[in-house]
Amino acid sequence: MSKRKIINDPVYDGFLSIDDPVILQVIEHPYFQRQRRIKQLGLTYLVYPGAMHTRFSHMLGALNLMGRALEVLRQKGVEITDEECRGAKLAILLHDIGHGPFSHTSERVLVDVPHEEITLMMMRRINDEMHGTLDTAIEIFADRYPKHFLHQLVSSQLDMDRLDYLGRDSYFTGVSEGIVGTDRIISMLNVHDDELVVDEKGIYSVEKFIISRRLMYWQVYMHKTVIAADQLLLNILRRAKDIQLSTFNFQLSTFNLDRFAEIDDDDIMVAVKQWQHSDDEVLRTLCNNLVNRHLPAIRISNAPFENVECDYFHGTGVLHNRSYDFNDQEIKVLYKDGRCVDISEASDQLDRHFLEKQVTKYYHYFPKES
Amino acid sequence: MSKRKIINDPVYDGFLSIDDPVILQVIEHPYFQRQRRIKQLGLTYLVYPGAMHTRFSHMLGALNLMGRALEVLRQKGVEITDEECRGAKLAILLHDIGHGPFSHTSERVLVDVPHEEITLMMMRRINDEMHGTLDTAIEIFADRYPKHFLHQLVSSQLDMDRLDYLGRDSYFTGVSEGIVGTDRIISMLNVHDDELVVDEKGIYSVEKFIISRRLMYWQVYMHKTVIAADQLLLNILRRAKDIQLSTFNFQLSTFNLDRFAEIDDDDIMVAVKQWQHSDDEVLRTLCNNLVNRHLPAIRISNAPFENVECDYFHGTGVLHNRSYDFNDQEIKVLYKDGRCVDISEASDQLDRHFLEKQVTKYYHYFPKES
Amino acid sequence: MSKRKIINDPVYDGFLSIDDPVILQVIEHPYFQRQRRIKQLGLTYLVYPGAMHTRFSHMLGALNLMGRALEVLRQKGVEITDEECRGAKLAILLHDIGHGPFSHTSERVLVDVPHEEITLMMMRRINDEMHGTLDTAIEIFADRYPKHFLHQLVSSQLDMDRLDYLGRDSYFTGVSEGIVGTDRIISMLNVHDDELVVDEKGIYSVEKFIISRRLMYWQVYMHKTVIAADQLLLNILRRAKDIQLSTFNFQLSTFNLDRFAEIDDDDIMVAVKQWQHSDDEVLRTLCNNLVNRHLPAIRISNAPFENVECDYFHGTGVLHNRSYDFNDQEIKVLYKDGRCVDISEASDQLDRHFLEKQVTKYYHYFPKES
Amino acid sequence: MSKRKIINDPVYDGFLSIDDPVILQVIEHPYFQRQRRIKQLGLTYLVYPGAMHTRFSHMLGALNLMGRALEVLRQKGVEITDEECRGAKLAILLHDIGHGPFSHTSERVLVDVPHEEITLMMMRRINDEMHGTLDTAIEIFADRYPKHFLHQLVSSQLDMDRLDYLGRDSYFTGVSEGIVGTDRIISMLNVHDDELVVDEKGIYSVEKFIISRRLMYWQVYMHKTVIAADQLLLNILRRAKDIQLSTFNFQLSTFNLDRFAEIDDDDIMVAVKQWQHSDDEVLRTLCNNLVNRHLPAIRISNAPFENVECDYFHGTGVLHNRSYDFNDQEIKVLYKDGRCVDISEASDQLDRHFLEKQVTKYYHYFPKES
Repeated sequence: MSKRKIINDPVYDGFLSIDDPVILQVIEHPYFQRQRRIKQLGLTYLVYPGAMHTRFSHMLGALNLMGRALEVLRQKGVEITDEECRGAKLAILLHDIGHGPFSHTSERVLVDVPHEEITLMMMRRINDEMHGTLDTAIEIFADRYPKHFLHQLVSSQLDMDRLDYLGRDSYFTGVSEGIVGTDRIISMLNVHDDELVVDEKGIYSVEKFIISRRLMYWQVYMHKTVIAADQLLLNILRRAKDIQLSTFNFQLSTFNLDRFAEIDDDDIMVAVKQWQHSDDEVLRTLCNNLVNRHLPAIRISNAPFENVECDYFHGTGVLHNRSYDFNDQEIKVLYKDGRCVDISEASDQLDRHFLEKQVTKYYHYFPKES
Repeated sequence: MSKRKIINDPVYDGFLSIDDPVILQVIEHPYFQRQRRIKQLGLTYLVYPGAMHTRFSHMLGALNLMGRALEVLRQKGVEITDEECRGAKLAILLHDIGHGPFSHTSERVLVDVPHEEITLMMMRRINDEMHGTLDTAIEIFADRYPKHFLHQLVSSQLDMDRLDYLGRDSYFTGVSEGIVGTDRIISMLNVHDDELVVDEKGIYSVEKFIISRRLMYWQVYMHKTVIAADQLLLNILRRAKDIQLSTFNFQLSTFNLDRFAEIDDDDIMVAVKQWQHSDDEVLRTLCNNLVNRHLPAIRISNAPFENVECDYFHGTGVLHNRSYDFNDQEIKVLYKDGRCVDISEASDQLDRHFLEKQVTKYYHYFPKES
Repeated sequence: MSKRKIINDPVYDGFLSIDDPVILQVIEHPYFQRQRRIKQLGLTYLVYPGAMHTRFSHMLGALNLMGRALEVLRQKGVEITDEECRGAKLAILLHDIGHGPFSHTSERVLVDVPHEEITLMMMRRINDEMHGTLDTAIEIFADRYPKHFLHQLVSSQLDMDRLDYLGRDSYFTGVSEGIVGTDRIISMLNVHDDELVVDEKGIYSVEKFIISRRLMYWQVYMHKTVIAADQLLLNILRRAKDIQLSTFNFQLSTFNLDRFAEIDDDDIMVAVKQWQHSDDEVLRTLCNNLVNRHLPAIRISNAPFENVECDYFHGTGVLHNRSYDFNDQEIKVLYKDGRCVDISEASDQLDRHFLEKQVTKYYHYFPKES
Repeated sequence: MSKRKIINDPVYDGFLSIDDPVILQVIEHPYFQRQRRIKQLGLTYLVYPGAMHTRFSHMLGALNLMGRALEVLRQKGVEITDEECRGAKLAILLHDIGHGPFSHTSERVLVDVPHEEITLMMMRRINDEMHGTLDTAIEIFADRYPKHFLHQLVSSQLDMDRLDYLGRDSYFTGVSEGIVGTDRIISMLNVHDDELVVDEKGIYSVEKFIISRRLMYWQVYMHKTVIAADQLLLNILRRAKDIQLSTFNFQLSTFNLDRFAEIDDDDIMVAVKQWQHSDDEVLRTLCNNLVNRHLPAIRISNAPFENVECDYFHGTGVLHNRSYDFNDQEIKVLYKDGRCVDISEASDQLDRHFLEKQVTKYYHYFPKES
């Protein structure tokens, strides 16, 4: 009788279950437990108060989907060994482990090392501690494993990462646009010539997935008030660094993995609260604004803003999103007759014109009049 | 055309809307914004990873239910002035504002002032700043307002507080037991002799509500692993206090409201992380255990544990829950013929025996063998 | 105290409530009760077994949405009298009352009168019986009422009919693609120059609505197996008519409203079952196929099928769908600065190219090899 | 690559999948397809308009749960052969196949044979046609198979039948009281001494299940308006029989299985509509009342009604429900230490007093004053 651990998760009918002792051991590792204190969507909770969910829950959710996907593929006759199953599961479980607090924001200021590299460092450290049990996982993650489709389950246009975060972010924000019919998509996965593909019957589900992703992009991930909050935090961190106050400072040359692993969302927010009492008026004001949610005003435009003042309170930026990246891995559809074509050809709804269309928007933020 | 603000909330179909400028002003107050950084369920996220939701979202949710309840009552002919509506809404919005971080745990160690008193202090402070706009709200909250049923909407066995938190905690934990049919209960509310009552047709819904509450109590609020985690945090705070390390220390004699208002969950967690490097071995070990989720083992029993060691690592305690408290406000059912009886009489399922039954359990926690 | 009637409806949190005695009287009319026995989606249940929901429930759902929409508009300062409210509600309640059984299929064979005309006949008959109480409703329905936007709530690209049926059909089929965020769209409705418009903040919701409609079109309404089943029923009715067997035969010249009102889905299905024992082999076979769900095979193609046999067992047809019909009422977006533009201009996602794109598909059905 | 068939089902995340060709063949059998035309809850749709769902969808849903349960048990080390899996699945799939239209009502008047016997007749007929493939299924169904726990999955206090219908009836009526946490209960199933038991951790889920069942009983299955409608239909059928009009008449002595299999809900309703034009005034009135939903008034009381008139328009009856039947199969809880006790002992909430309590109610129906 195998030992099963049940983890509660509102996204998947209340819970998911794990029975591989190696995976359970990895979940208990401090690098992994730390993700309990890093929110998946950073400051988004200032716009969607429910969006407090953590990277920890996302990583377990992605693991859960990986388990289902592997089972579906095996049922369709795709050969996957037990070692490969474990490898793919560990790879998805750890694919984001290197993210720091408010990652997409802070990375630009605090940490001089891309999170992908930190992820690999952490995976290797855990692998050393576990005597090489993660070898296959690391190869799959780094796309050096012979069966390429296993990597695609971890990272591609239709990977378990995206499937989980779209559904999860939708659940916790309450934005129904992100509901993607995860179960149905997974049940339609298949492998053809070592490529992850989607069975013909799954075309509509993939269409919906692509569109949902686009809508979530604008409605949540690039919500203008979230952008304004991010800019505010960025300016706080920049100012703290400029006046040599910040204690969060990670350069590649002196990078200390364990010290990095100790920093999470809480540290940033406590620092921001303390800086409300700083001698520096700029820093004081910025921090006060974040703590009490006095966010900058922000204007969005289809044309760049020109000749605008840029300091700790004002600035500009650019946003762009394309539904589907042709340079990235393509989503392929497998027909019953054996043909395998790109979704842009297979879909009647989403032609190349729609999919390639890149939407670019410019923003300008500045203090709200009080 | 009134100005409406929409606040996203996954619990209520994605959003709720607020159009009273006074209420919007209160929400923007730092005392209120601070609740964004206090989790509704403290350390429960160590068992239910989705339970990261904040007191902020709960208080807005309860406000939303209050709005619906007042509308239902008015439609049924209950006279409620606009000033009373606003008062009841502000009272529910602020009813929990005095809670500190990990309130139910920390209150016993860090703060010497009951949260109800802090709530009143904060309400009065905001009222002063807003030139008395909260007078009615405070009277309703303190049950000094002539229309008693308005207070009952804020605090009774069937108040908007409980209705929101049961539904909300259910949503974020994923424990379906807490789904209570909120809309239906609210639609059944009525007023009889200045008492909040439930229309005859709502008996089943009230039964379900009482049972859901009991199941949520054991499955979430008193989950044994949550108890174990609470004890661990409690012992950390006790130890830090005993060795005179803690900076969180609020006595009534020297109570400083603004300093109190600066402390939230983040401060506690950052302190715990820092104390991992303390010179004190006991504190160091306890903190390490919490950060990496090495929780104490816990045993539950129907009889008290006797002769057990009690120190920072071992201890005992008692839990009890009764579905329905006869000493508390009773839930009354209003029949079409005008009779008004207590739910214990009206219900065929839940007789006095069931409702009065008090379940008491004893627990004993101790270090897990590693 | 007004008399409220609660009607259970799983789509809207369990129930909806009605308190207008005139509306309650209309709901009790036999013409309306008859819709309990007509399925909203005809034979779709042969593909989506949950899709047994009736026109009755749809009409009440649309009524419910109308109530919410009128409330939102009034809150935004749009002037709508109580009589107009009732009129708009009655108009949406009755907008589909003229549909017969398996309407979209049978209309072509059994009934020589368009369902819109039958709807008007029935509305007038009820109006007569109720001494003119439906006068305003009929004017709104027929778009002869001065306030044009009231008609648009009943019939336009963003009317309460579509909003309800997309959500309802999604609920009962289980196809999550149809979830449209109804509440949010309704909360964004507004009126500008006597036109129903959507506030700027509702752009994403409208985009989602348009896309959902398109996906539902192909995934449910034009599902190829549903088309095959429809063709089978159509051929049964044609054959029965050709051999002068059918008792369902409604010509305009001899149209008898009350006799028509007696026919529903059950009569058709009982006839089909009886015809399984017919002397006519063609009819017998066709009926047997429908009763036991031996549906024709069907092939879909982007090009027309040529030179194919057409009889009671074989045939061809064409399907087309355009997301958004520019000849139809446009969906207009109202900006904060007072500008009012078409969604195709306001949307960054859905440009004219996407919206105008008409997808046409051809089908060919024929007996499945056994 | 095995052939999988996907069946859409809103209750289980949109769909369920079947890959056993034998099971697919049984589903295609006319006896099974016929269940598409028999509603699971008879006339309940007159109170809950969404409750149009069929026995067909319930039987597939129960099959789906059986698949999950068998998988869970196998993962826990319970030995179940492939043949036993198929047998248990076929047994649950067919366990209700003998039900006729409006079964619980009509059985008393139209059919003189209990539905359990008809179920066995149909199972045997299909078994003959399929050359004995259903042998194991029939043994499991009839509780003659050595592994008793397989029968308990089909029929016991915690069988897949109840688990599906509670969730399904809840979904289609919109009564949230029936949500039972199916997935969690199934994940807690185990086998001990050839008895189906529930793991210790599942106690709360079982408590919720028992309570949900009781609430659904009163709120849906024994809803007083549903009782009134049932009585009306019963009296129609009795009257038609008494005046020798009915063509639905199945006695054991002359029982014709194929003729019985041709009768479904549609036939009854079409007959009722036709009898609206009967020469018999009693029948005419009764039928008119049902078609236009003029249901009898009904009064519920805790004491029997005495000296009341009983004819086709008036009558009395009795309802009773006990949460948990001690004479029936008990629900046993398996502790980690190997002990196995009845839920009434294991539960702190539901003691014997609560579980044994039998609620009995009396009703009296009579024509509504018009």
